[in-house]
Amino acid sequence: MKLDKRSDFSEWYNTVIREAEIIDDRYNVKGFVVHRPWGMRIIKAVYKIYEEALEKRGHEPVLFPTVIPEENLRREEEHVEYFKAEVFWVTHGADKLLPRKLALRPTSETAFYYMYSYWIRSYRDLPFKAYQSCSVFRYETKATKPLLRGREFLWIEAHDAFPTPEDAYRQVREDMEIAREVIYGRLAIPFIFFQRPQWDKFRGAEYTFAADCLMPDGRFNQIASTHYLGQRFAKAFNIKFLDKDGVWKYPYQTCYGPGIWRILAALISIHGDDHGLILPFDVAPIQIVIIPIPSKDVEYDSLISYCRIVEDQLRSRGYRVKLDSDPEVTPGAKFYFWEFRGVPLRIEVGLKEMVNRSVTICRRDTFERIEVDLEKLQSTIEDLARMILENLRSRAERDLESRIVEASSIEEVGEAVSKGTVARAPFCSIDYDGESCGEKLKEIYSAEVRGVRIDIEEKPPEKATCIVCGRPAKHYVYIGKSY
Amino acid sequence: MKLDKRSDFSEWYNTVIREAEIIDDRYNVKGFVVHRPWGMRIIKAVYKIYEEALEKRGHEPVLFPTVIPEENLRREEEHVEYFKAEVFWVTHGADKLLPRKLALRPTSETAFYYMYSYWIRSYRDLPFKAYQSCSVFRYETKATKPLLRGREFLWIEAHDAFPTPEDAYRQVREDMEIAREVIYGRLAIPFIFFQRPQWDKFRGAEYTFAADCLMPDGRFNQIASTHYLGQRFAKAFNIKFLDKDGVWKYPYQTCYGPGIWRILAALISIHGDDHGLILPFDVAPIQIVIIPIPSKDVEYDSLISYCRIVEDQLRSRGYRVKLDSDPEVTPGAKFYFWEFRGVPLRIEVGLKEMVNRSVTICRRDTFERIEVDLEKLQSTIEDLARMILENLRSRAERDLESRIVEASSIEEVGEAVSKGTVARAPFCSIDYDGESCGEKLKEIYSAEVRGVRIDIEEKPPEKATCIVCGRPAKHYVYIGKSY
Repeated sequence: MKLDKRSDFSEWYNTVIREAEIIDDRYNVKGFVVHRPWGMRIIKAVYKIYEEALEKRGHEPVLFPTVIPEENLRREEEHVEYFKAEVFWVTHGADKLLPRKLALRPTSETAFYYMYSYWIRSYRDLPFKAYQSCSVFRYETKATKPLLRGREFLWIEAHDAFPTPEDAYRQVREDMEIAREVIYGRLAIPFIFFQRPQWDKFRGAEYTFAADCLMPDGRFNQIASTHYLGQRFAKAFNIKFLDKDGVWKYPYQTCYGPGIWRILAALISIHGDDHGLILPFDVAPIQIVIIPIPSKDVEYDSLISYCRIVEDQLRSRGYRVKLDSDPEVTPGAKFYFWEFRGVPLRIEVGLKEMVNRSVTICRRDTFERIEVDLEKLQSTIEDLARMILENLRSRAERDLESRIVEASSIEEVGEAVSKGTVARAPFCSIDYDGESCGEKLKEIYSAEVRGVRIDIEEKPPEKATCIVCGRPAKHYVYIGKSY
Repeated sequence: MKLDKRSDFSEWYNTVIREAEIIDDRYNVKGFVVHRPWGMRIIKAVYKIYEEALEKRGHEPVLFPTVIPEENLRREEEHVEYFKAEVFWVTHGADKLLPRKLALRPTSETAFYYMYSYWIRSYRDLPFKAYQSCSVFRYETKATKPLLRGREFLWIEAHDAFPTPEDAYRQVREDMEIAREVIYGRLAIPFIFFQRPQWDKFRGAEYTFAADCLMPDGRFNQIASTHYLGQRFAKAFNIKFLDKDGVWKYPYQTCYGPGIWRILAALISIHGDDHGLILPFDVAPIQIVIIPIPSKDVEYDSLISYCRIVEDQLRSRGYRVKLDSDPEVTPGAKFYFWEFRGVPLRIEVGLKEMVNRSVTICRRDTFERIEVDLEKLQSTIEDLARMILENLRSRAERDLESRIVEASSIEEVGEAVSKGTVARAPFCSIDYDGESCGEKLKEIYSAEVRGVRIDIEEKPPEKATCIVCGRPAKHYVYIGKSY
């Protein structure tokens, strides 16, 4: 199997997720896939890191039912209008028609906030911050793609309530920080945090903010989004708190959706190479694989005994380590297998290493090999784990930067987009009055205005004009294709 | 709120799960409940321990879709016959009728084994052992009860395949060991492992085995079950492996379902007392709560500073610890609050402790209090954690033993059952030919034959006769009410 990520990313992606046993898409319901052990272990590690980051900032874990009654969805008008085209309905129990139909949650605002009206009563209950890790369901009519678009997919959803709008906006910033800490910091995936155009916001929200990373085919991949809901849902669900001043008030809400599937898709696609996956140390199901290199001059049993000493040493330090001692498989085949699965460090042990009381370590990201004395093994591994993460991150950052092209006309946007890059361009407005310009870009180039950066401030020069309509440009926006 | 577990268990149970914020049953779909943070943290801890025990024995994590197409369910005749009366059906996507209806998984044999026919091809693929942690759905017509019977509930399901029946039976034993290690060992819940009567087996299985604990109202609570499936599903799903001898064969399968909900219900009910929950150290969301005891002779700030030293010391050792420093709440109210939630250890700090560089520790299970020097704090906590677990376990064991009554006539069975105990009695047979005797007990006393113990060997004397029909008794069985 010859992989070529650069020339055919889609083929590369499908091959890697299948052959590395991330996902199996042969399940016999369209758009629903099976998570296989290697993928599931990465997913569990990503969940754990994300949940810890949320809990550190005061979010409490909850779990709501998978089903939402139709009447809850109907409470917020824009919300139901949008989602009713995407909802799977449970209508029967056994052969009986249910008294009312139940939605498989497409997102859980209308489940959470029904209960928030019981749980939030006083200013003492605020801020109220809760999250759940779960799958959600969308009746997608577009083509599905594993980890990027599915009829059932994995995410986290956090639902927060505050006494003031300022508190709620601070939460939006905090959500951005959490994404930076986890996705950028621990997984080495660089992204841009946007305010989305008003016509592209989450239905039911006042404003939507989202983290986009860039996939190797130049498409934006939204890996997390956070929404300022204002008091809309609070009013729809009658969530009220008695404030210090003795007045009943509606809280201001936010909701946050890190896409665990989308993050995994980015992790695979951005870091992987033509040898397969490359996994950051923190989420690798196996962090270190030990491979004995037999030769005529060394007895296999004593080679394995030495390998076990190395294995025990590493395991006792808490590393996820595997000794691949199958004598019927060649070292070369083992190298290939574990490289493909992205194990970040390989330890090779042969006669030389046994004699020297050392091991040879090979980095998955650069294939650099170094011999290390057993006494220095742990500190070297710690260093290498950090170096791999930094290398993956700087590689990905360079790639992201190189794919952002300045455009000062609509034609230049088109050119950028057709080449697998994204355009930064002056634009009239991401408020509703810029919607027709957004529509036009979509029509001509199938490209979307992804929004205005909120992670850094970018102001176009005084006299800049919108690349579509020629009116004065309020912002720089980023334009590209997306998943 | 006055609790009395002994005289009104049902009231006690409902109050505890509501007030300790385990479950909220006010969600507006019948039989579906919300898991609140305190409950969710315990659940996550139980999952973690169970998953580790499964993985240690070679089970790999997977995650299957929530939906199963009708045709999969239909492949195994007995299985569909039973479950079709309990299945919720998804019939629509948006306003479109789906081409075929999809079941919300009531259990996932027919999803897993569809894929196993792709994944299992050679004897090298065996044993094949995988599990998923998920919720399942049953259209219950009986009254639901949080954590005991719900229309959506949490469990783990493990699905294993082996080359021989002996291997599969060994897995049944291993499943029992895992239950013992986790449920008895870590959670201090004693149980009996039964082979269930043939008329009460899992539909689609050849034999069913199950762990029952005994609730305070004398009802059996099935907390885990494991099923010997033989080759029935393998044949239904055409799962075949090429054996060493070059012949294609059907594997022998088992499936195992630890009920996370049921285990939590047992944990709450068996260990709790009239002050609320009592949690084993390993699964307590907060293991140690520190409560400052202010007095006229000590400045509040310096008291809190000292508490923080204690807190930091414990946190750095990895304990889940909380300093409850709210000056507006009295120590008594704090005691009450954390006792109710089952925090296993309370540390009290007042002037005396500050002066002595000590703390006073109070055990939740016995309310014993001891003063301990700071230097001995960690070792004391380790000891106490172990002692609490042992005390909970022996208390629960004594209770279980005291509730098993010997019965040598059907009247004695009735008497035992009416008193909230269970009967051990000689019985003709748990094969199908004993079914009418089982039916009779159900009719007269609403009591079930739970089966024959497989954790210990119990043979009735030579001439013992069945307490129902008077035929020779093959076994001792246990008879009681259940959830």
